[in-house]
Amino acid sequence: MIQPERALHQVLEWGRSLTGFADEHAVEAVNGGQYILQRIRPSLRDISVRTGRDPQDETLILAFYRELALLFWLDDCNDLGLILPEQLAAVEQALGQGEPCALPGFEGCAVLRASLAALAYDRRDYAQLLEDTRRYCAALRAGHAQTAGPERWSYAEYLHNGIDSIAYANVFCCLSLLWGLDMATLRARPAFRQVLRLISAIGRLQNDLHGRDVDRSAGEADNAAILLLQCYPAMPAVEFLNDELAGYTRMLHRVMAEERFPAPWGSLIEAMVAICARYYQTSASRYRSDSAGGGQRSPA
Amino acid sequence: MIQPERALHQVLEWGRSLTGFADEHAVEAVNGGQYILQRIRPSLRDISVRTGRDPQDETLILAFYRELALLFWLDDCNDLGLILPEQLAAVEQALGQGEPCALPGFEGCAVLRASLAALAYDRRDYAQLLEDTRRYCAALRAGHAQTAGPERWSYAEYLHNGIDSIAYANVFCCLSLLWGLDMATLRARPAFRQVLRLISAIGRLQNDLHGRDVDRSAGEADNAAILLLQCYPAMPAVEFLNDELAGYTRMLHRVMAEERFPAPWGSLIEAMVAICARYYQTSASRYRSDSAGGGQRSPA
Repeated sequence: MIQPERALHQVLEWGRSLTGFADEHAVEAVNGGQYILQRIRPSLRDISVRTGRDPQDETLILAFYRELALLFWLDDCNDLGLILPEQLAAVEQALGQGEPCALPGFEGCAVLRASLAALAYDRRDYAQLLEDTRRYCAALRAGHAQTAGPERWSYAEYLHNGIDSIAYANVFCCLSLLWGLDMATLRARPAFRQVLRLISAIGRLQNDLHGRDVDRSAGEADNAAILLLQCYPAMPAVEFLNDELAGYTRMLHRVMAEERFPAPWGSLIEAMVAICARYYQTSASRYRSDSAGGGQRSPA
Repeated sequence: MIQPERALHQVLEWGRSLTGFADEHAVEAVNGGQYILQRIRPSLRDISVRTGRDPQDETLILAFYRELALLFWLDDCNDLGLILPEQLAAVEQALGQGEPCALPGFEGCAVLRASLAALAYDRRDYAQLLEDTRRYCAALRAGHAQTAGPERWSYAEYLHNGIDSIAYANVFCCLSLLWGLDMATLRARPAFRQVLRLISAIGRLQNDLHGRDVDRSAGEADNAAILLLQCYPAMPAVEFLNDELAGYTRMLHRVMAEERFPAPWGSLIEAMVAICARYYQTSASRYRSDSAGGGQRSPA
């Protein structure tokens, strides 16, 4: 496996053309990406007989880290206004269509899309990745817009958007594209789509529960706990959300036990359930309230 | 259109073999079914050029009413214990597989399944109706079991189950089977599946909000408002659920405006959104707290 320092250097190198791209985006991407790959490596090795894709392949690993870093950067572009609105629109267009960016700079976008298109084990995953990117960008925009507007979302609307803005589908799709996880075929199964919704809701709630102190002190209202408390001050919002999280986790385990998904999906989903405990605690700059770090929403 | 009195008589006639089948099940079925058909009749007439299915065809209308009556009866079989557990298991097996019932009596089940199989405009709708029936029965069982057990569901788990136990998918699928609404093809579209989930959640919340007084006095805990108040006594549960209902309705209108579904789906979905106001108020025996009526959950 590529050394983390070397990987970090390469992700930073790639991110140079992206205005506002920060060390933090690369650090978080390598940190989270490494954790996920570590957890599914045995399964990736097993299926490599079929796919011919080496779990240790540096090119594949770097492409994965770069996509994760891109997701973090896009999140902060919305939350922190790292780039101008017209730049963001051009970036979104480029990333969602797989075209060069219409505005100068941001060459990293086209570079990454071209490399993912070339590396795709199944071309359908690349088409889906573009669609997932469009959904992710739209959800970030919608989340940002609603906190600025006069109308509050219902909990249901918030969570519906939050399932897209957590970007877990993007993470899975990118892994599938790079290591041949056959996600395009699996998406035809209702139970698989349900798993995607459940794990995304779990990620969203973990993220919001974990980040609520940072979000509150940052005046960030795009958080389930904060939204509920604003609307229903008497409601035990954190207890409610913890129960919701437990409920989604039970539902996920139920469907995973009933359905058989090919490797590495079992270990991948488990890794994503557990990522909160492992990852948030080590991501000081992004999620700890005693830091001066930037955004609080996580795409991975 | 068949006269309501005549239709009622025919549904009652058919229901005779089903132990516990009551006038109420037939009345509610004709009442609700008539409302739905009335709302979509112009669209059904428009597509009849293609389908050759007359919106006024008595055989089709009666099959629809009978399926609705069956859903009401199954609901009460679970809630009120109208039949023995082993009878219910045999009935569910017969209805979900399209086979004759293994236990004597209940001939109406096989009669209805055979007639729907024969009437199916698209055979895929019949297969899906059997699957929807299995989901409905499983959801009724699960809902009943959890109120009896020691563990409380989370709101998310409750609503997930409530989306199946409201049986709107069954209603749509039966209409599609009888009048060629092409639901099997539409189900392949993610936006259509989202519409199904949204309208079902709306129906569930309307039903629970409307029936909460009856449910409370009947000691029935399988109701979102009661479940939330049991878990979080300080929570403004009714306000929260009304906001959720409004949120789901906004989401539904958004996706219906963005997507184009062929007739009669627009008017059908609108009819189901509005059914609460029109229907619950006239369904004295089932939903009004001043009545001695039985169950409180509605499949239509």
